[in-house]
Amino acid sequence: MTWLDVPRTHPFGIQTLPYGSFTTPDGPVPRVGVAIGDDVLDLTAAAATLLPEQAGLFAAGGLDPLLAAGPPVWAAVRAAVTEWLTEPRHRAAVEPLIVPASEVSLLLPFTVADYVDFYSSEHHAANVGRIFRPGSDPLPPNWKHQPLGYHGRAGTVVVSGTPVVRPAGQRRTADGEVVFGPSTRLDIEAEIAYVVGVPSTPGRPVALGEFADHVFGVCLLNDWSARDIQAWEYTPLGPFLGKSFGTSVSPWVVPLAALEHAWVAPPPRDPRPLPYLDDTGRTDGLDLAMEVRLGGHPIAQPPGAGMYWTPAQQLAHLTSGGAPLRTGDVYASGTVSGPEPGQRGSLLELTWNGAEPLTLPGGETRAFLEDGDEVVISGSAPGPGGTRVGFGEVRGRILPTPQTSDQEGPEQLRP
Amino acid sequence: MTWLDVPRTHPFGIQTLPYGSFTTPDGPVPRVGVAIGDDVLDLTAAAATLLPEQAGLFAAGGLDPLLAAGPPVWAAVRAAVTEWLTEPRHRAAVEPLIVPASEVSLLLPFTVADYVDFYSSEHHAANVGRIFRPGSDPLPPNWKHQPLGYHGRAGTVVVSGTPVVRPAGQRRTADGEVVFGPSTRLDIEAEIAYVVGVPSTPGRPVALGEFADHVFGVCLLNDWSARDIQAWEYTPLGPFLGKSFGTSVSPWVVPLAALEHAWVAPPPRDPRPLPYLDDTGRTDGLDLAMEVRLGGHPIAQPPGAGMYWTPAQQLAHLTSGGAPLRTGDVYASGTVSGPEPGQRGSLLELTWNGAEPLTLPGGETRAFLEDGDEVVISGSAPGPGGTRVGFGEVRGRILPTPQTSDQEGPEQLRP
Repeated sequence: MTWLDVPRTHPFGIQTLPYGSFTTPDGPVPRVGVAIGDDVLDLTAAAATLLPEQAGLFAAGGLDPLLAAGPPVWAAVRAAVTEWLTEPRHRAAVEPLIVPASEVSLLLPFTVADYVDFYSSEHHAANVGRIFRPGSDPLPPNWKHQPLGYHGRAGTVVVSGTPVVRPAGQRRTADGEVVFGPSTRLDIEAEIAYVVGVPSTPGRPVALGEFADHVFGVCLLNDWSARDIQAWEYTPLGPFLGKSFGTSVSPWVVPLAALEHAWVAPPPRDPRPLPYLDDTGRTDGLDLAMEVRLGGHPIAQPPGAGMYWTPAQQLAHLTSGGAPLRTGDVYASGTVSGPEPGQRGSLLELTWNGAEPLTLPGGETRAFLEDGDEVVISGSAPGPGGTRVGFGEVRGRILPTPQTSDQEGPEQLRP
Repeated sequence: MTWLDVPRTHPFGIQTLPYGSFTTPDGPVPRVGVAIGDDVLDLTAAAATLLPEQAGLFAAGGLDPLLAAGPPVWAAVRAAVTEWLTEPRHRAAVEPLIVPASEVSLLLPFTVADYVDFYSSEHHAANVGRIFRPGSDPLPPNWKHQPLGYHGRAGTVVVSGTPVVRPAGQRRTADGEVVFGPSTRLDIEAEIAYVVGVPSTPGRPVALGEFADHVFGVCLLNDWSARDIQAWEYTPLGPFLGKSFGTSVSPWVVPLAALEHAWVAPPPRDPRPLPYLDDTGRTDGLDLAMEVRLGGHPIAQPPGAGMYWTPAQQLAHLTSGGAPLRTGDVYASGTVSGPEPGQRGSLLELTWNGAEPLTLPGGETRAFLEDGDEVVISGSAPGPGGTRVGFGEVRGRILPTPQTSDQEGPEQLRP
């Protein structure tokens, strides 16, 4: 138990201790923080006096050096923070280094190296297949053989709270005309993101059992998607501009050490995966329960448990051809959707491509996102002793496309 | 004319002055260099005494600070280097700072931020269509409306000379079996890469006319491709592991200032591009003549002139949805193929998917790359006064897939 006044039911109780990067109005220089209850421990300041041998990891105010430091250091830092917050003898030194969470601004906590997005929910992939290829097999023929994925744009990964500007782009209208303008089908994708700490060696695949040697922690991710831009561009090279105008991540990275009680068996697979993906006997599924709210109203509860491909399999596949990992690599699960309609992690599925709009309290309906809409995705996983390990939230509000000359017609460009 | 003994016909004459990063056996700390003839000027050392107001740009030994500095600084540095190498009064100071190129090791010259690969040669795209979709329209329906592209893996971009390890991966055999093992169809793609210097503002597209405000220079790129892995994985999310085991770039970045004589009109387009891509009246095509050699034997001469989509259009498209540019972003043309069989920039096309193997001097044949094969891509563009602006070369040799337990069968994994 911590000496702070944090209820056992708090998602950011002592069982969680996620890491982030923050500033305050009085302290504009970024610092590393650890969330505890409704407060934030200034780890940069605390380490300077209480953990001097590791203080250098936190001096720059972001998580990059900690991520690179590896499992023994991760364990030592977590043990130290746990001790500071639980043993009363540390209270006098630590309490002055605690800031109310309401007073901090949270930053993108680490430098994103490469960003990969997978497609690992069978329910999501099958829903997409049923919507776009009715009458044929809902899953692509390769889907059950490998965790399909693609590289996204690392430079458009932003922290929760960053406004998302509705992208302009090319789309093909129902009558076959190709036009350029603000996306008319702006969507979300509720996903789980894995943050790589320790690099791997080029040419050396990372086996399933080596997941925890490389991955530092987990956060939530909203892969904002412009369905109209995506639909017109994605054959044959995959998603590009339809998904590279903003990808939001939650500001708190929950370390794997907080998730010991959250691993579950993955669903049965048929066919049996090839040896490098065969996790028979392992429990590599993450039981992360998510909630999606639109304008404050809950619209979906996507379940991380039940994902067909696990994060360990995603990592093994990603590195199977020899691609090395770098500190700050992020890979995401793909949209998390469960078998029930209320468990779908995208509006595409929740509204069945707009055919069945959601009705919000007050009577407004939504097929896709309107300007001004705010989406919040939160999540938690089982912790020790019946507690929940919180992931906080990833939040974003849609801003209208700015007017630029690019969206004017040829007449305006050539007077 | 430079006071060095450099013939006017030298591709690295005074008209070129490309930038790179190098070490020497005596000087293992990276320095910025400028190629001149068969030598390299140590710009880090030269700037310290001769250009002190800009010396900080070169102190770290890589190009990142120079890239970020922007066009006025790029012009000032190039003018200074040109003056040092042409005016005899500088000879005494500069000559001691010149190292024979044969004595330097060239490094990846800048930090790659995001890497995007386009698909902008109509001849290449049509050849691919004819090979894989005979009887149907060779180009996808979106191809003439936008420069198609996808994000590649920035962490696997390597400098020329780095060995390329044949990747293992999943493929589907001719009889439909899915197996994992070393790629059996390893290929090259001869491409032109554009290196972004100046960031752009999120949400603010970069117009065609702003290309030179952001792009610093150009290099050669070999997008090594495992066709069997790619063919099995790429529907519907595009190329992933089939192209993320190694992407080689040439070590010398040729600044745009050296390419004033190299721009040509692009081919006629039908349909006329949308306004943000409409370059009527502009001459944004790059007349970069490439040569591909396999085992020392020339196998193709891909022409950069004639690419359907120009680098200015690629940049306008990439940013059209608001994605910001970062210093070190690289985007590549896609395979450069011309209309003639000898102008095709991939083995896929040169051997028509292996059906028409190349015969090398000595009688060996090649459908795809064998272990030990070395591929060298070189290039040059028109310079002032009938000179050629050289791009040097991008070189790589194929190493065999290392043996790992991942490639053993299930019997070995479960004794």
